Amino acid sequence: MTGSTFGRVFRVTTFGESHGKAVGCIVDGCPAGIKLREDDINRELRRRRPGGFLSSPRKEKDEVRILSGVLDDVTLGTPVALIVDNRDVDSKSYEPIKNLARPGHADYTYFAKFGIRDWRGGGRASGRETVARVAAGAIAKKVLEKFGIRVYGFSREIAGIRAETNGEIEEVFQISEKSPVRFPDREREHLVIERIQNAMRDGDSVGGIVEIVVKGVPAGIGEPVFIKTDAYLAFAIMSIPAVKGVETGAGFESARMKGSEMNDEMFVEKGRIGFYSNNAGGVLGGITTGQDIVVRAAIKPTPSISRRQRTVNLNTLENEEITVKGRHDPCIVPRAVVVCEAMTAIAILDLMIMQGLVPRFL
Amino acid sequence: MTGSTFGRVFRVTTFGESHGKAVGCIVDGCPAGIKLREDDINRELRRRRPGGFLSSPRKEKDEVRILSGVLDDVTLGTPVALIVDNRDVDSKSYEPIKNLARPGHADYTYFAKFGIRDWRGGGRASGRETVARVAAGAIAKKVLEKFGIRVYGFSREIAGIRAETNGEIEEVFQISEKSPVRFPDREREHLVIERIQNAMRDGDSVGGIVEIVVKGVPAGIGEPVFIKTDAYLAFAIMSIPAVKGVETGAGFESARMKGSEMNDEMFVEKGRIGFYSNNAGGVLGGITTGQDIVVRAAIKPTPSISRRQRTVNLNTLENEEITVKGRHDPCIVPRAVVVCEAMTAIAILDLMIMQGLVPRFL
Amino acid sequence: MTGSTFGRVFRVTTFGESHGKAVGCIVDGCPAGIKLREDDINRELRRRRPGGFLSSPRKEKDEVRILSGVLDDVTLGTPVALIVDNRDVDSKSYEPIKNLARPGHADYTYFAKFGIRDWRGGGRASGRETVARVAAGAIAKKVLEKFGIRVYGFSREIAGIRAETNGEIEEVFQISEKSPVRFPDREREHLVIERIQNAMRDGDSVGGIVEIVVKGVPAGIGEPVFIKTDAYLAFAIMSIPAVKGVETGAGFESARMKGSEMNDEMFVEKGRIGFYSNNAGGVLGGITTGQDIVVRAAIKPTPSISRRQRTVNLNTLENEEITVKGRHDPCIVPRAVVVCEAMTAIAILDLMIMQGLVPRFL
Amino acid sequence: MTGSTFGRVFRVTTFGESHGKAVGCIVDGCPAGIKLREDDINRELRRRRPGGFLSSPRKEKDEVRILSGVLDDVTLGTPVALIVDNRDVDSKSYEPIKNLARPGHADYTYFAKFGIRDWRGGGRASGRETVARVAAGAIAKKVLEKFGIRVYGFSREIAGIRAETNGEIEEVFQISEKSPVRFPDREREHLVIERIQNAMRDGDSVGGIVEIVVKGVPAGIGEPVFIKTDAYLAFAIMSIPAVKGVETGAGFESARMKGSEMNDEMFVEKGRIGFYSNNAGGVLGGITTGQDIVVRAAIKPTPSISRRQRTVNLNTLENEEITVKGRHDPCIVPRAVVVCEAMTAIAILDLMIMQGLVPRFL
Repeated sequence: MTGSTFGRVFRVTTFGESHGKAVGCIVDGCPAGIKLREDDINRELRRRRPGGFLSSPRKEKDEVRILSGVLDDVTLGTPVALIVDNRDVDSKSYEPIKNLARPGHADYTYFAKFGIRDWRGGGRASGRETVARVAAGAIAKKVLEKFGIRVYGFSREIAGIRAETNGEIEEVFQISEKSPVRFPDREREHLVIERIQNAMRDGDSVGGIVEIVVKGVPAGIGEPVFIKTDAYLAFAIMSIPAVKGVETGAGFESARMKGSEMNDEMFVEKGRIGFYSNNAGGVLGGITTGQDIVVRAAIKPTPSISRRQRTVNLNTLENEEITVKGRHDPCIVPRAVVVCEAMTAIAILDLMIMQGLVPRFL
Repeated sequence: MTGSTFGRVFRVTTFGESHGKAVGCIVDGCPAGIKLREDDINRELRRRRPGGFLSSPRKEKDEVRILSGVLDDVTLGTPVALIVDNRDVDSKSYEPIKNLARPGHADYTYFAKFGIRDWRGGGRASGRETVARVAAGAIAKKVLEKFGIRVYGFSREIAGIRAETNGEIEEVFQISEKSPVRFPDREREHLVIERIQNAMRDGDSVGGIVEIVVKGVPAGIGEPVFIKTDAYLAFAIMSIPAVKGVETGAGFESARMKGSEMNDEMFVEKGRIGFYSNNAGGVLGGITTGQDIVVRAAIKPTPSISRRQRTVNLNTLENEEITVKGRHDPCIVPRAVVVCEAMTAIAILDLMIMQGLVPRFL
Repeated sequence: MTGSTFGRVFRVTTFGESHGKAVGCIVDGCPAGIKLREDDINRELRRRRPGGFLSSPRKEKDEVRILSGVLDDVTLGTPVALIVDNRDVDSKSYEPIKNLARPGHADYTYFAKFGIRDWRGGGRASGRETVARVAAGAIAKKVLEKFGIRVYGFSREIAGIRAETNGEIEEVFQISEKSPVRFPDREREHLVIERIQNAMRDGDSVGGIVEIVVKGVPAGIGEPVFIKTDAYLAFAIMSIPAVKGVETGAGFESARMKGSEMNDEMFVEKGRIGFYSNNAGGVLGGITTGQDIVVRAAIKPTPSISRRQRTVNLNTLENEEITVKGRHDPCIVPRAVVVCEAMTAIAILDLMIMQGLVPRFL
Repeated sequence: MTGSTFGRVFRVTTFGESHGKAVGCIVDGCPAGIKLREDDINRELRRRRPGGFLSSPRKEKDEVRILSGVLDDVTLGTPVALIVDNRDVDSKSYEPIKNLARPGHADYTYFAKFGIRDWRGGGRASGRETVARVAAGAIAKKVLEKFGIRVYGFSREIAGIRAETNGEIEEVFQISEKSPVRFPDREREHLVIERIQNAMRDGDSVGGIVEIVVKGVPAGIGEPVFIKTDAYLAFAIMSIPAVKGVETGAGFESARMKGSEMNDEMFVEKGRIGFYSNNAGGVLGGITTGQDIVVRAAIKPTPSISRRQRTVNLNTLENEEITVKGRHDPCIVPRAVVVCEAMTAIAILDLMIMQGLVPRFL
């Protein structure tokens, strides 16, 4: 009954159904003295917003209102309440399938849990809920920037096409941001787009893998033995709709490596400790090493597809068939990138505060 | 500073360093009225204990003492304190490498975090800490059994060899339990053992993948939107030493599937809702579907290897080389199985209680 | 940094400054299936609102908007976001004393904590924040009513005049609700009003004691050893602005009693256990006895007085004098009654859920 | 189900029944680098121990063992597990009253809650549980001392006799510590002793009021709006067995004061802010002012009395009479002083850490 809050000291509590009046959140534990304007948040919301020929035609302006916790564009240290109205709500396409459980969606499970459910656009289980996460994440990013910490996300893989990247993450990120699918490999980008368009044409959808890199986190962050940095990030990211797996560093590949390959050897240079590799993904024993934190998330294909699927009527308990119309992205990976960034920022900031590195007034 | 507790209502708080006096935990929130004897816990501890030719020669008896919360072998509903003494402690092999950061270990990160560290056998970051998890998990399993819920674990893959299984999970589990490497594929088991022995001979180590299947969890468990069943399991399992990735159902494979392949279609039979497949791994929108919950964890190769590695002296900040002697398993996957089961049991029971399905007195 | 949430499973997170855009809260953990309309909440807000000749002239309509968690007037089990706009905001009277610490207020302490403060109307420390508590409490009351639990509050004492009451609490409550000072002793009510008016005339203020009685709570509620019912109520109620003390049952008087006077003897009648007295106030060992829960809270006199007081300028660090104009009640006890009821309802419902007595769908 | 943990970041989780094998706790979140030896804790345990002619003849040595979290007498930052064996256990006197609910005790309520109870010496509800609190509090005190914070407790009132004190709290405390009843008024001490002895002779018991003063807490501690310093202290202290009321500063007396009397006026002297009085008890708006924190707790008379009382048999549900033999103090106020100090130290340290004032390594 307590699932809508993430964080121990930097705490984000979200609310809102897809077709309700609004979505939003309360961010408690934000340090005082941070410059914060609505546009800082809107910028991130725009990155998450559907856009272009490859995504849902639902057109939300997604402009946030800051209701509290800020005076003269500076945070007060008190809770920051954020609200984003739902305007372009159209529940009509949901009426005919009101009682049908859409395969791959949470219709049946919400019903099993609560005995009642909001059938309009997926209700609370809709991807729209992530607006609040991105808004809160925008605040977390602003605070992290004060400490030189940056969170970068991009599509590592879409529809089976893997992006080959090299160079600094900043560059990779810049390329990705210019791509309509946040795919940082210009050579293969057209293959990705082709596969997405094919899926669209077939009334189908595709998935992919998001990669997040965090630069600038000092060594020593993360709490043994349960609130480990990687465990906490896995918790944060796996809570995002459509994520089916999370890994750090060498991840699942490490299962096939030898100890002598996996271990990151160390050195000292000019009094500073360094590593010859980063298979650990920036975390050892759950605590950060000072290297880049690297996390990847597997995103399943959008469950809303216009193909005919077998399902059940939750009301009559009869077998039926369903074709999901509504407004849906054939591939949510590029938008999931922004949500993964947000949850990463929230989790890392929370751990930074736990470590005592963030003063109450900045 | 609060990392040693897992759970919201069924709460496990662990303590102990590898070469300290004892390891153990307090389990708060256990329902009253459960039959519980020390041997119920010892049985699970024995499953975790190193054993046979493939594992560490450290020989701990690992017998638990229940200090509280139980009267006449029945739980009182009050905290159950569990303690397991460290007897076969031998810190001598650690003395020469006292100030060296073992690659792949948490030596450097603990030092960076706390400014001090227990150099004896890995201290708090040692795998020995998982004794407390397994002990607490044994209690969680006993409670879950009352509801017909069973947690099964086995090695899905070791050193790149994947176990092909078919048939019911109970059977798979039975085969696995008889295998020295908890590998449920009798045909390929010898390949696994060969690779482990090769690694041993080379002073190296190997990793693998643990698979957990939970049977009997009713539909409706898991809290939107952050304490999702899969997110909570990812949190629980990723907190286990050496785990570098977690996935549910089709997991990372889902990134390459189409929506029409991934979605589990549904049917009604005799008034009960069922699914034609289980790519979801028993969880939709973070809430259980009533199907088996399927989770996999990537286990990295044991970081303690006797090969020469480059590292640093944390005291002098000079470059050095290290050869880790100590007593170590060349492959911890079979033992990690038991720890993954334990954390899964704890997390699932916690979610069951949150859903209001577990009375205070059973 | 985490102070704006109360509750473990029924969780209330509030936001808002006195002269900001709005105050409100997110209520997470509310069971599904509860009839809930905005007017259910507005009714309680009206009870809290200043009114009549004895209170602040700030005239807020205080109408709540439910933004989420409710469909067709029925709760969904998802977070209920509540918002109350601040309309009649007038910060002008605060401008001249912008940098002065008002004695008895939190001006200096917020400044010491956050390094910045909202000087407009007390900011977050204003009594206006309690609007959100009362709104959340209204939901808690609705849920409790389903279990036959009722929370009654009244002024037990104002300005040194103690209300003598007898008869059932329902009656006492009815009389209190008709009194402009929520004072349930018709004979002495005029003395109270006189003293308040005298204080007003003198530019001064008075305090009093709120009494809360909860009927219908079953035996067995409350968690040993820290989340005891009385400890949890003390936490909840002491967090209300202006409360300087909390007691249960015989309370401070018990310090002067003998064991033989204090102990509530017991009997069985028709198979049900009863008590000959209720000095315990319905709680033994932190767990409810099934008797009425009785709690009292000491409310200090309103700190805003128009008398000249010595204080400091937080900006210049010089000694100054201050006369607080603004719009203030000479006695907030009658309004504090409603807030004490709300916090009690929230805490009791939370404990009821912890005990497993509240299903997810009602 | 989660009641045995107190604290958000400095977290104390206790276990143990009065006549079980041991009582103890895990202290998580203690900073690294603190000198800590078993004797630091034993010293406080001795202060709590029954002693002298006025207290229970149960003679426990109460020597703690530190099982983890400390290496070479220095804390590691990892959980500190503390255990105190129960040796002088004698359950015989409880056998005859095994099924009777002792009036004023938690026998009936534990039974109502858990459906089962430990009848031996009060089980978990026994005052013996406070051993763990005092042990944890000893660690908190050691950390606080590093910041110049000291927690002093004494009996402000016993059996209706109020201690008149003047002078510095250090002096008051010194006198109190030399008194067998921790009563800092040498003139009236004999009256207190007389009343306790009379109560003993009559098979009865008496209560009193504990006062706690905390010196050295900086301004700015405490989290708005729910984890206020005073609310948190009320929570902590009200959770101690036998406490029926808590107040800060002027407390219940403030209900009878005028605003002009209650408000603490302020001044600046040599650039530092001061107050002309301390009716607030060191807390405004829940945040510390930098003055002494003053809290008082009402302690009810020991419920175990040898007088005949009417009660019920929980097994047969018949009316019976009871005479409680066992080993009991006629007045627990002097020992409660030490427990109140401990809980205060734990709560204040927790708030200090929340404010970011306590580094991870000291």
